[in-house]
Parts: sequence; structure tokens; C-alpha cells
Amino acid sequence: MRMYDLIKKKKHGEELTREEIAGMIKGYVKGEIPDYQMSAMLMAICFQGMTEKETADLTIEMAHSGDMVDLSAIEGIKVDKHSTGGVGDKTTLVIGPIVAACGVKVAKMSGRGLGHTGGTIDKLEAIPGMQVAIDQKEFFSIVNKVGVSVVGQSGNLAPADKMLYALRDVTATVDSIPLISSSIMSKKLAAGSDCILLDVKTGSGAFMRTLDDSIALAKRMVAIGEHAGRKTIAVITDMDIPLGNAIGNSLEVIEAIDTLKGNGPKDLTVVCMILASNMLYLAGKGSIEECNQLAREAVKSGAALKKLAEMVEAQRGDASVILDPSKFEKAPYQYVVKAPKEGYISHMDTEQCGIASMVLGAGREMKDSIIDYTAGIILHKKTGEYVKKDEALATLYTSKQEQFAKAEEILTNAYTFTKEAVTNRPLILAKVTSEQVERY
Amino acid sequence: MRMYDLIKKKKHGEELTREEIAGMIKGYVKGEIPDYQMSAMLMAICFQGMTEKETADLTIEMAHSGDMVDLSAIEGIKVDKHSTGGVGDKTTLVIGPIVAACGVKVAKMSGRGLGHTGGTIDKLEAIPGMQVAIDQKEFFSIVNKVGVSVVGQSGNLAPADKMLYALRDVTATVDSIPLISSSIMSKKLAAGSDCILLDVKTGSGAFMRTLDDSIALAKRMVAIGEHAGRKTIAVITDMDIPLGNAIGNSLEVIEAIDTLKGNGPKDLTVVCMILASNMLYLAGKGSIEECNQLAREAVKSGAALKKLAEMVEAQRGDASVILDPSKFEKAPYQYVVKAPKEGYISHMDTEQCGIASMVLGAGREMKDSIIDYTAGIILHKKTGEYVKKDEALATLYTSKQEQFAKAEEILTNAYTFTKEAVTNRPLILAKVTSEQVERY
Repeated sequence: MRMYDLIKKKKHGEELTREEIAGMIKGYVKGEIPDYQMSAMLMAICFQGMTEKETADLTIEMAHSGDMVDLSAIEGIKVDKHSTGGVGDKTTLVIGPIVAACGVKVAKMSGRGLGHTGGTIDKLEAIPGMQVAIDQKEFFSIVNKVGVSVVGQSGNLAPADKMLYALRDVTATVDSIPLISSSIMSKKLAAGSDCILLDVKTGSGAFMRTLDDSIALAKRMVAIGEHAGRKTIAVITDMDIPLGNAIGNSLEVIEAIDTLKGNGPKDLTVVCMILASNMLYLAGKGSIEECNQLAREAVKSGAALKKLAEMVEAQRGDASVILDPSKFEKAPYQYVVKAPKEGYISHMDTEQCGIASMVLGAGREMKDSIIDYTAGIILHKKTGEYVKKDEALATLYTSKQEQFAKAEEILTNAYTFTKEAVTNRPLILAKVTSEQVERY
Repeated sequence: MRMYDLIKKKKHGEELTREEIAGMIKGYVKGEIPDYQMSAMLMAICFQGMTEKETADLTIEMAHSGDMVDLSAIEGIKVDKHSTGGVGDKTTLVIGPIVAACGVKVAKMSGRGLGHTGGTIDKLEAIPGMQVAIDQKEFFSIVNKVGVSVVGQSGNLAPADKMLYALRDVTATVDSIPLISSSIMSKKLAAGSDCILLDVKTGSGAFMRTLDDSIALAKRMVAIGEHAGRKTIAVITDMDIPLGNAIGNSLEVIEAIDTLKGNGPKDLTVVCMILASNMLYLAGKGSIEECNQLAREAVKSGAALKKLAEMVEAQRGDASVILDPSKFEKAPYQYVVKAPKEGYISHMDTEQCGIASMVLGAGREMKDSIIDYTAGIILHKKTGEYVKKDEALATLYTSKQEQFAKAEEILTNAYTFTKEAVTNRPLILAKVTSEQVERY
């Protein structure tokens, strides 16, 4: 097998065999295949695509390029969840505890935020004392005891993905469904859970802008999961509007706590309930309706909120802030953004909302930027609502007062107003299983 | 300008500006743009192509990446000629002297052979004493005095092309018309002649297998030449059959001498006359018919043969072998290949004929293989002819007797026989100028 021949084969649109893909990934990780050949291959894949089988083979090889986490020390069925990333997405903080409260184990490794999207690990670190770098033994023990633990990626998980992603990032070969899906799923397979729920975000705040692209990505990821023997479902959720009202780390934790208390924003609550029900369904807890009921009960009874507090305590965080979120440190500066005109909000450029929050200090422009956990935005008005001129659209929070003007400009420009009333699209746009695609 | 953005632009099928292309080539030659970004760009170009303007801009930048040869020290109009390579192509040895005998200067830099194709420089070195590594001052002085000199590429000619070609060679990005045409034309522009005649070979012995591809390549190269202010014409000639009867270095020199004496094979003579006429036409020596008459006269009068002898002498070769080719060293072993069956020869896989000659020692399998100048093949029967079983098809020449069996097998398999009479296609298939494409 010569890499030259594989590039040529893919360039001509032919299917690579399992052996060829294995040789390519092993050779690349060993440094035997140079970057310049791999980048030519990646570009050829961007144009020619990969079949479902090729993508699954690639993903499995990437997963096996490093440690395969063995979760057998944790009793029961383990369910993982992955979001493709968006603005205001604090669902893991809500549904991890709900699912655990219903008796299903969640041993989750999460990532940090970059650019306009946040990351669960950053949000957890907004909780005083919270540890996310925890060794595997303790991680397993917390999951066994509490039912849920969320930690940062540790160990040598899918190193082929790290190498390929770094190369894709500098060669304009990121936007390819087989490459995106293999990147995400290689880490999920290596992370070891039995079942995987995928939350594929779609819209102006998501990586996938159109519903068709999101469904195509979801289908490919579900196929990979099933090919690898993991029960996998994908839900396509709206990211053409920020999820909930809070954007920014401690602000989002507070909103997650509100939601676990049953007082969260309606959109966030609906999405969390759907995601939690599907995770429970994957774990065999009954029909979707039964699982939905279980999830509602877990919130209503306070069991889910208690799980979050237990997890925080187990990970050496200050659980008292969970029970009394007024204890969270506040940003020293606040500023109200007013509506520039009267009308219905017809659209919010959600990526720009995320960027406004980043500008305030809540996110990272570069990988090594430092985060201000108190910074962010509370939205008072979102798509579909009617505002009068100068009515409050949002409140900005920051430690850097000089950033207000820039953030205000970005956020104001993110809003579009019209005279006609607006109907929002559904929050859940589709559900993808190995059997079917259901559009709502 | 970031290379990332240029890759993305090309990936999405947009046109790169002159400034972007200049930045890319300069950055790559300086080592500021890494191979892995350039190979992604090359693959994107293979899929998206380049406009005529982009290709011309790329070529000019590649030409200017090194020395631009200044031929102004040579009086009169200088005409260059380039063949895309084939089997039995000894036309430079015939038409260089013809054109010079008609008073037009030919200051030509040529290459070596690789794989199934031969190279003019190797053929010249089959002449005892012949020097092809000549400094520029002496090169100019020979052209001024004799009218023609053919030397190896010297100096730092289009280094960007050398770098890009090496990368394309290992990333399966060779077969792209903008990349092939810019590679060829960058060296022609740097070589400094006023006019360029392109001999684009087409068929089973050529890089371009179909007439349509050959015409597309020719059009692009002519457009580049004209864009750069050089008068450029392309002639598409048949390479679905070896040109002439001789394949191999000294055998081809002898056939070239025969042709200059008016006793060459008909196909070679016809092609040489067309190429020479077009070179004279580019130099403003009259209509194509008038130029054809001039070329015929140069052969008939013996002036062209005299020019070859003068050039050989000026380049320190033994001119006596030109006047008496029986003085050429002979291969120690000869072997006659017989027809395996009776019938008309309907096709010759011309690449395989070239490979058979290479196997005998006439060509290079690798860049550093050593050539046997006496090795090669004299074809007795070619496409269209009728043969009886066991009639002589060809004679093989070599210093390595053990190679006969392999060469015989390759050559015999290259022939296809039928019962029905066969009509050969025209030797000259099309002519491409900046105004039109004429198919014959």
C-alpha cells in the first residue's frame, strides 16, 4: 500500500478498503505518511466524499489510534451525549443530573469552548473549586457513586483525530461530512459508553447552517455509531436562536440550576427534556413517553438538582452555590442594550451573539485566551418577540468596561426587526435513528 | 493574504487574483508556505481548475521565481519548440538544424528522458564528445555563429516549478491541465525565446491520451504564451504510434540524420516539415506554404544536415559521425522479434514500445538510471501494415542479452492484429492558435 495510490484512488472517487484506511491512519500517526500527502487526501475527500462504510472504517481506526476507555468498572448502562456546539448550550449541566437521577450512568468527557461556541468544561470551572482534571479511577468511582461525572478529556484519546484536525484546520478541509462525523465519533467511540445521543445543532449559531446538512451529518454519525455496535440517536435542535437566555459561563450555570428547579426558560427546558428522554430511551428505560415522564419527575422531585450538587461536591466544587446561585460572583460592570427600533424580532444572528459574549470575556478568541467566568449576556428579548424602541434587549456583563461598545454594536447588529409578526420554527427539527429520519 | 484563505477560495471554485497567486508562489519558494498547504491547494486545483487568466498569472509567477534568460545577445528572432514527450520523438534533432538553415535562431534548452519517453539531451549525448553542459556565454555565441544550439537546462530556471512538480509527483496531483500547462510554459517563458512552437503529442504513447484533452492543454498553453507576449502556436501530433522507426538514443540520431538527408521514414519527415514550417512562420518567414518550401529546400540542398554537423562540432562533438553514421558504435547484441500471427496491425500500445526500449537499456526507470546509448528498437512494421506469421516486426539492440525475453514479450504484446485492413489516423490532428482550433 502506497499513500500515493490511495490519494489517486480517492481523487478518482473510488472506495478505500478497510485495510487501506487502517494503513493510512496507522502510517500517519507513526509519522510515516507526511502531512503533505495527508492534506492532499483530505482535500480529495472534501470533493469526493466517503461512503458510509469508509467513514465508519475511518472512525474506528481513528478511535483505535489511542486509548479505548474501558467503562466496565462502572455498573449498568452508560449513556454519552454530544452536542455539535452552539451559543447558550448548557444542556449537559441539566440533562446529566436528570439522567443520573433516573438511574442511568453518565460518564462524560467534555471539551472547552473556542470562538463563538462555549464548552461544558469552562462552564463547570465557573463553579468555585470545581475539578475537571480527574484521574480515571476517581472518575469511575464518582460515576458509580453519584451516577454522573463530567470531566475534561484525559489520556491519549483518538490521537489520530487530534493530528488530522490540526491539519484540517490549516488546509481548509474542515467542512466535510465524513471528516466531521469521523472526528466527533472517534472520540465518542474511544470514550467507551454503550449508547450515544447526538445533539446536532442547526442554524446561524451552529457549524451546520442548513437543516439538510445537519440531517446529513446526523445520519452519517448514527451510521458510524451503529456500525461500531453503539446504540446511537441524533436529535436536530434549533441553533438559529441562542438556547435559553444566558450566554457566558457562570450565567449559564445559574440558568441550568433554574432549569433543574423547573424555572428555566421554556426553550431550554423543552430541549433538555427531549434530550434527557432520548438518553433514557437509549438506556432502555421505556418508551419515549415513559422516559419523558421519568425526566419530568426527576426535576419535579428535586432529585436532579440534588444530583448536580452531589457531582459538584464529588468533584471538589462548592455545592452550596448550586443550592444558592446568588452566591456566584457577579461581573463588576453591567450594561443594558436597548432596542434601536420598534418591531418584531425576525431573526438573531446567533454566531454574532456568541461573538458579543466572547468580546465581553466569556469565550476564547485563541486557544490560549483567558476566560472571565462572570462575563456574558442575559437576553431579555429573542426572535418572535415584540419590542418598543429603547426597550431592554439584553444585559451585558463584563470585567472589562471598555468592551461594552464593541459588544453592544455586535449584539445590536445581530438582531433583525420587522413590522410583521413572526412565527418561530420548532426547537426540535428532526430525529435521526438508524431506521429513519423524522422531520418535525 | 493567508494561504488558508486562498485554499478555501479555490476549494469553493473562486478565481485567485494575480496578487494572491504571486504571494502564494513567492511564499512557497521562500519556504514560508508549507508543503501540506500547497498540496491541499494543488488538489483543490485538480478539482476546480483555474481560469485562463489564473493559469497565465501562475505561469508568469513561476517563470519569475528564478532566472529569466535574456537572449538579447543573440541577434534576430529566436524560436523555441517544446514537445510534451513521446516515443521515437527525435524531431528537435531534425528541425533545429532546418530552422537554423533558413536563418532563424534556435537557442534551445532540453531535458532528459524518464520512463517510457526519451529526452533530446540523452540523444545528443549519444554523439561521441558532444557537450550539453555549456555556459550561457558560449551557448549564445554558438547560436549567433551556427544558428542553433541545444543544451541542458542550466542555472536556476523556474525553481517554483521544480518544487511544485516534486510535490505533485507524490500527491497524485499531476493530471491537471492548468498545472501541466503552467509547468511547461513557466520554463519556456524563462528560457527567453520570442516565439514558441508546442508539439502536443496525443495517444497511447503520450501523457495526453485523448485528442480533446490534448487540444484543451494546447489551448491553455497557447493562451499563456500569448498572455506573456510570446507568439505561440501548438500542433497536435499523433503519438498513438511511435514516431519514425527508431527508438533509442544513437538509433534515433541516425534516423534524424537520414531524415535530414531526405531519406527518413515518411511519418517522421511529414511531422518534422510541419513543425519546422510553423517555427519559420512564427518567426515571420512568410506564409505556412512559403515556410514549408523553405524547409524542404534546406533539406534538399544539404544546408540543414550541414547545420547539424556545425552544431555538433561547436559543442565539441565528433561531427564526422553525422556525415557518416556508420561510425556510431553498435549494440553488441541484436535480436529479431517475429510476428506471432498473420494480419493487419490495428494498434500499437506506444507507451509499451517505449518501455520495451527502456528495458533494453535505452531509457531510465529511475532518475539516476544509467543509459546505454546503443540500446533500442528498430521497428520494421507499424500500425496499418500487413504481416505474415514469423515475419520480422522489429529488431532489438542491447548490451544486456538477458533483457531480450522481457523486451520481446512487452513489444509483442504492444501489437494488436486484425483481419480487416486498417486506416491510420492523420499524423497532424489539430493546430491551435490564439484565434482558432483547426482539427484535421
